Amino acid sequence: MDDKSEKKDGAKFSADEIFKEFKEHSISEFFKKNRQMLGYSGKVRSLTTIVHEYVTNSIDACEEAGILPDLYVEIKEVGEDRYMVKVSDNGPGIPKKLIGKALASILSGTKFHRYMQQRGQQGIGASGCTLFSQITTGKPIHVESRTSKESYACDISIDIKTNKPIVSNLSEIGPSTSTGLTVSGEFGYSKFENSDHGVIEYLKRTVIANPHTSIRLRVNAEPEIIFPRSTNVVPAHNKVIKPHPLGLEINDLLDYAHASDSRKLSSFLTESFSRFSQDKVNELKQILPNIDFSKDPKTLSWGEAEQLISAFKKVKWISPELDSVSTIGAEQIKVSIKNILNPDFISVIERRPKVYRGGIPFVVEAAVAYGGGAGKAVEGGSAGNIMRFANRVPLLFDSASCAITIAVRDIQWKRYGIGDFDSEPITVMVNVSSVYVPYSGVGKEAIAEEDEIIDEIKLAVMDAARNLQRYIGGVRSKSEQETKYKAIMRYVNQLSIDLSELTGEDKESIHRKLKQIIEKRYKKLFEDASQSEIQSES
Amino acid sequence: MDDKSEKKDGAKFSADEIFKEFKEHSISEFFKKNRQMLGYSGKVRSLTTIVHEYVTNSIDACEEAGILPDLYVEIKEVGEDRYMVKVSDNGPGIPKKLIGKALASILSGTKFHRYMQQRGQQGIGASGCTLFSQITTGKPIHVESRTSKESYACDISIDIKTNKPIVSNLSEIGPSTSTGLTVSGEFGYSKFENSDHGVIEYLKRTVIANPHTSIRLRVNAEPEIIFPRSTNVVPAHNKVIKPHPLGLEINDLLDYAHASDSRKLSSFLTESFSRFSQDKVNELKQILPNIDFSKDPKTLSWGEAEQLISAFKKVKWISPELDSVSTIGAEQIKVSIKNILNPDFISVIERRPKVYRGGIPFVVEAAVAYGGGAGKAVEGGSAGNIMRFANRVPLLFDSASCAITIAVRDIQWKRYGIGDFDSEPITVMVNVSSVYVPYSGVGKEAIAEEDEIIDEIKLAVMDAARNLQRYIGGVRSKSEQETKYKAIMRYVNQLSIDLSELTGEDKESIHRKLKQIIEKRYKKLFEDASQSEIQSES
Repeated sequence: MDDKSEKKDGAKFSADEIFKEFKEHSISEFFKKNRQMLGYSGKVRSLTTIVHEYVTNSIDACEEAGILPDLYVEIKEVGEDRYMVKVSDNGPGIPKKLIGKALASILSGTKFHRYMQQRGQQGIGASGCTLFSQITTGKPIHVESRTSKESYACDISIDIKTNKPIVSNLSEIGPSTSTGLTVSGEFGYSKFENSDHGVIEYLKRTVIANPHTSIRLRVNAEPEIIFPRSTNVVPAHNKVIKPHPLGLEINDLLDYAHASDSRKLSSFLTESFSRFSQDKVNELKQILPNIDFSKDPKTLSWGEAEQLISAFKKVKWISPELDSVSTIGAEQIKVSIKNILNPDFISVIERRPKVYRGGIPFVVEAAVAYGGGAGKAVEGGSAGNIMRFANRVPLLFDSASCAITIAVRDIQWKRYGIGDFDSEPITVMVNVSSVYVPYSGVGKEAIAEEDEIIDEIKLAVMDAARNLQRYIGGVRSKSEQETKYKAIMRYVNQLSIDLSELTGEDKESIHRKLKQIIEKRYKKLFEDASQSEIQSES
Repeated sequence: MDDKSEKKDGAKFSADEIFKEFKEHSISEFFKKNRQMLGYSGKVRSLTTIVHEYVTNSIDACEEAGILPDLYVEIKEVGEDRYMVKVSDNGPGIPKKLIGKALASILSGTKFHRYMQQRGQQGIGASGCTLFSQITTGKPIHVESRTSKESYACDISIDIKTNKPIVSNLSEIGPSTSTGLTVSGEFGYSKFENSDHGVIEYLKRTVIANPHTSIRLRVNAEPEIIFPRSTNVVPAHNKVIKPHPLGLEINDLLDYAHASDSRKLSSFLTESFSRFSQDKVNELKQILPNIDFSKDPKTLSWGEAEQLISAFKKVKWISPELDSVSTIGAEQIKVSIKNILNPDFISVIERRPKVYRGGIPFVVEAAVAYGGGAGKAVEGGSAGNIMRFANRVPLLFDSASCAITIAVRDIQWKRYGIGDFDSEPITVMVNVSSVYVPYSGVGKEAIAEEDEIIDEIKLAVMDAARNLQRYIGGVRSKSEQETKYKAIMRYVNQLSIDLSELTGEDKESIHRKLKQIIEKRYKKLFEDASQSEIQSES
């Protein structure tokens, strides 16, 4: 077809004309234009995102340094839609020479390349805060850092066109008894609100999932809100693990091979990957007789890597090292939820670690709480509430598209005695832990719909729901028994009189005996109905 | 507090130790690790994403060059979960010197910096496809490009560590009668499926929203599926517009000022922004007597920019240039929906352009179709269906968190005669057009929850729903009248006999007259009930 005849008058541009505007832009420019992708959409959400980024980094740093986190968060309204936010921690601090890149260069950090479970994993969050401060107020972020070697303060901003940090006003500050980092900045397009999506709810949930953390919050001139720690045990330091062969893709294997210092393909495999014994190499040699396992791994080709990956699937492997994944712990979840919700019933399930995408370890913990303060208050009663966590970080936004919400909504709650999830006093809490949580967006507010993760969440919640079902069944039968008990008791007086007349025995004595018999029969009714169950997958 | 006493044995790392792993990584590395953020999660979705990226770029390029798009899409299964995808267009082609960056360098392109309505806006999509091919098959993308000046072929891949393109096997190819671009590649982790989220549905919806586009699709060895164009008019070429003062943030104003060649602040303002006359400068001078409007814009400070932005809000401005936003057009939407759904009723609403965030123009078009093929088939009947578009691009994923879904779900459908949206044969189609659509994620599958956009979508759909309500009211009253008509007709025979006996007149003649009278009364019933309305906001 001849397209020339149908060109619109004057609208024709050649490729050269169109492409003379071709430009490259930096990741900072990209997020300046698309800040909603980092969580900066809506004023309340923006303020929560700022607190979330700093608090997450602080807890990660404390944990890595083996320090019990003591955090101080301050929020002060300083203008229309404008807030000062300050977050102080007692972590290890950040060395002077890296402070700029750590807080003002998007995609820089210690976490991205590591194969271990951490709250942060991208190297975007804190630099995103610096960017947001800068584009809404024009001001830099102020930092005070105390490491075991140096104590200094400085201002930090981003050169947006190049994504490079600008550090200014660097000065030495007096040492303190403890190390730590304090960041503070001013942010526009923000709003403090005490709501489901606000800072207070975020911090409350942070402490639920991180019971070793203590946080003090000051909002304007109001009295401090204190979220105390409920344990003094720092979680075991998460290990950096070697990837499992079943979690590798062809391209990963090639990258590792080409960067390897091993002399032979066989030693590269046993040294670089988890569960890769010499026996496994021998098995692979049987499957792939055409591959030379003594070759330099740097010369591995795509074709060879493809054959290896395909052969990995035919070999029986020991499961991934699951101690790389750390949980909150069923006992801690129970204590946290009791403290916060004081429900009539609670059931906590800790599943065993599983893998998704072939080899990425993850583990699901779930709790179902019912009655008391469970559920969320709505007009005319309670509604079901889902509290989502990933690697102990509360997820407050983008609920509808999250694997946790999808899994919980997909459960047939009627089977568990819950007629309508949206009108019962029920809270479902789920925490997904992994060395790599597949977030659906850069803002890390929702877990992507990985089938294996959704299935595992459903199994955990359904386990907890089965215990709830027994409890609800018990409560219902108790209520029926109470009715019977009252009915029978109504006849005791008359019966005592009649029996006394018939037998000549003392009326009071008959009454006492009858009452004893009946009460014995309905004994359970007089015991505490509140119940809790903790269960690990067997 | 003395943190030292609570360190866990052996887990203590100092800041220097922790930060010795500090690294920077490229945007390609980031998306290699987080490919689900680009839409590569799930095999069916991955294949649709590839087709979406190439088709979107092709239509954008054709439109810019004033060419009626003729696209050819080929999908061939070439292995387990592995597909060859080829997309050919008759667009202007891509110049040789930029082909690498255009297809293999994330965040490069012609569109990012432009203030105009286009399907693509980020410079990520096509390079994301190259990345996905590479990490799942290790193969480059093959390209054939014919511009008005050169015809060549080459292979393209990305150096992931640096985000730089690698162009290989460059060769001249014979010229053709028309310009155009053909890209083809192999992709793993993909699956072809004829479903709501598959390629066929994506292309069908693409042609609904781009009736000037014709697409041929070949899947494996099956006969071609042809999606023909329904108009020969290329949409008017969208204008690059100047930003409106009310759409500016302080940081934008500073960026423009510091990059400006204007000698004075006053001329910078009138030359750079839309609706900025000398009169407006004079008004601002009154409001801001302390600012020197003859100063060099390159020396504008944050404080001055802040005062200017604040003063802009006190001045009355003419609305933004709304011809920068182009729509599908109500008449075209009606034709498209009739072709595809053949509903009993259709109402199309084209709203007037509005602005959000103070100054970004956007426009909403909405259609409500009912009966016939409207809704989607589910077990035991029909369910409501929402077809979402942004800048004429179909959005098939992440429905729950999209502004369009939120708006449509928030409507009280009962008021419009729809008892339950999820069990009626109804399709709601919405297209949001803007120079900047605020997508919630990099994969551009959902529109972020901007209040002004949600409100506008609701108004448009409710307008269309009001017409539907009248139609449904009519159908219901028609059905009642039909019952009455039949009841009356049952008496006509007997009445004719009785009247004939009473009056002596001919029975047949009485019967004919009675029938005429009754039919006249119920005349409307015999007319075609199918109806459609097109309405523009007045």
